[in-house]
Amino acid sequence: MILELADIRIHPGQNAAFDAAIVHGVRDVISLSKGFQGFKINQGIENPERYVLQIFWETLENHTVDFRQSEAFTQWRAIVGPFFATAPVVEHFELLAKSD
Amino acid sequence: MILELADIRIHPGQNAAFDAAIVHGVRDVISLSKGFQGFKINQGIENPERYVLQIFWETLENHTVDFRQSEAFTQWRAIVGPFFATAPVVEHFELLAKSD
Repeated sequence: MILELADIRIHPGQNAAFDAAIVHGVRDVISLSKGFQGFKINQGIENPERYVLQIFWETLENHTVDFRQSEAFTQWRAIVGPFFATAPVVEHFELLAKSD
Repeated sequence: MILELADIRIHPGQNAAFDAAIVHGVRDVISLSKGFQGFKINQGIENPERYVLQIFWETLENHTVDFRQSEAFTQWRAIVGPFFATAPVVEHFELLAKSD
């Protein structure tokens, strides 16, 4: 399993609307994609305009190819893109260790 | 529950030693701290020298006060600090939503 971490910064003052938009986008668009295995959306305490979206994919290509080259990616960006203050920083990770 | 996200960059070529050190430091030092509830250690695919450490704390102060002002913090930094290429970027997050 692969972890996608998307580091997102939104425009100030739009938290309530963005909260609804990102949950809608993940639940109704991304979660239907091939290889999707789960998600977490975290909101910053020190920086409330910072969100870290975690998406768990079966393989790296499920995100980088299957999702990003699909119509779903366009739908997702139409939902959340208007809130972005800067381009999200997205990288992928493997799990090295975790608590039991 | 609060998520601490520590974004870590290590010197190149030290992955195997750092993997062992960070697991040791979390399991044998941080996990004994008040309010510790769990952890994940993720290693970057695009940037193998990047690690994202997730620590789950009962409260924000369990990390920022109880842990950081304890001897355990000094022990932890002695274990992992020598590997750091830059100062880790650490912030805290609340869970907005997650998959079932």
